[in-house]
Amino acid sequence: MIRITLIGSGNVAQHLIKAFSKSELVEIVQVFSRKKDKLTHLLDSEIIINDFSALKEADLYIIAVSDNAIAEVSQQLPFNNQLVVHTSGTASIETLDIKNRRGVFYPLQTFSKNKDIDFSIIPICLEAENTFDFRDLETVAKSISNAVFPINSEQRKALHVAAVFVNNFTNHLYQIGQEICEENQVPFEILKPLIQETAEKIKTLDPIDAQTGPAKRNDSTTIEAHLEYLTNENQQNIYKILTQSIQHNGKKL
Amino acid sequence: MIRITLIGSGNVAQHLIKAFSKSELVEIVQVFSRKKDKLTHLLDSEIIINDFSALKEADLYIIAVSDNAIAEVSQQLPFNNQLVVHTSGTASIETLDIKNRRGVFYPLQTFSKNKDIDFSIIPICLEAENTFDFRDLETVAKSISNAVFPINSEQRKALHVAAVFVNNFTNHLYQIGQEICEENQVPFEILKPLIQETAEKIKTLDPIDAQTGPAKRNDSTTIEAHLEYLTNENQQNIYKILTQSIQHNGKKL
Repeated sequence: MIRITLIGSGNVAQHLIKAFSKSELVEIVQVFSRKKDKLTHLLDSEIIINDFSALKEADLYIIAVSDNAIAEVSQQLPFNNQLVVHTSGTASIETLDIKNRRGVFYPLQTFSKNKDIDFSIIPICLEAENTFDFRDLETVAKSISNAVFPINSEQRKALHVAAVFVNNFTNHLYQIGQEICEENQVPFEILKPLIQETAEKIKTLDPIDAQTGPAKRNDSTTIEAHLEYLTNENQQNIYKILTQSIQHNGKKL
Repeated sequence: MIRITLIGSGNVAQHLIKAFSKSELVEIVQVFSRKKDKLTHLLDSEIIINDFSALKEADLYIIAVSDNAIAEVSQQLPFNNQLVVHTSGTASIETLDIKNRRGVFYPLQTFSKNKDIDFSIIPICLEAENTFDFRDLETVAKSISNAVFPINSEQRKALHVAAVFVNNFTNHLYQIGQEICEENQVPFEILKPLIQETAEKIKTLDPIDAQTGPAKRNDSTTIEAHLEYLTNENQQNIYKILTQSIQHNGKKL
């Protein structure tokens, strides 16, 4: 068994605990959480610790805390030369204290508290400073996911920015869609199959080939009618900038 | 059997032909297409016509042509007082010539040529000028879809604008995500599960509750790092305006 200790009690930590608990290859040795009761629904309370001096030996230490706490937590670890990784999409591998062997174990997904997730399809992006450590991380990652990728810190930055576009910003466009519906007594339900189909298409088509709509076909009559229809200046501005961006792509082709 | 004639040969017309061909309640009497060979893979060539004078009697005439051709086509129909509908998300019911009984039969979906679609889950938005016509349209719509809604022309405008946000603009954000990945030798595949999950979440959560990311949590360090990372001015502007829009929502709560 590969012995793993987790540090953290947030969304990512909790989803990892669930995933590792199902893995036959991995044993969770301990989980560090400032507040023990945040994890008692997932773990025996005996293995939950809130003091770094109580840390036992493990093969791998996973720091799943907020980005700005990674450096401090990694400094507080009371040992050297162990394999220590963080789970962040933005922090560099160098955020971790150099006294240990460093790595990154970044599951690229949007984790919600109240929604269970099939971890086997979640991409895990790995980075390590030497080949053996990378292979060990790969073994651990493959025990919970079928989509494991080597991604260095520079690529991970790109991936995180791209994820903001396809996840955070996309979700915000859903919200604007809902607002426009509700202001006009239209059930948002009507748009849900379209939202699913828009995402579904990307499985088989490149986004540029899936693009439809007034901007794509340079339908200026419809674009002007829509801009006139929108009364919210913020929505108007978003409509304009995204329409122009779609039209600009068309020209480059 | 309800006898239907379709006018048009584009994406919407072709998907409607496929859906009606499976319906036991509907018979396709004729389909008008300027170019007959565009439809011979779907229909017996005998029922494809390219001359309005060859139109036979039907219970319902569906005009599935581009928005700017609806008015002219409806004027050219060589009969009065029949039930005639268009399939547009933007054109008003009044775009149709008043010599016939008018209505709208708007399937809200993104239709791609090379992708078959399960019509039963596609919302169909209906409008008519009198109750009997509305009920007849409802019967036809329910024979191919389980999601039929009464939507007047004003509501339909809102719906179409909202659809541009959740479909056209969302797809464009996917494209930007892909560009950022490819510029940095990261496979876009890694982001696809996230795209699916983002859409999936909306089935059970309101978009505002599903929102995550640096803008939502006012993480100005990450936002600045992302803006510095993006070298394309257009992508920077989109990042800024959508980040501000997410932050603004937060304040209103």
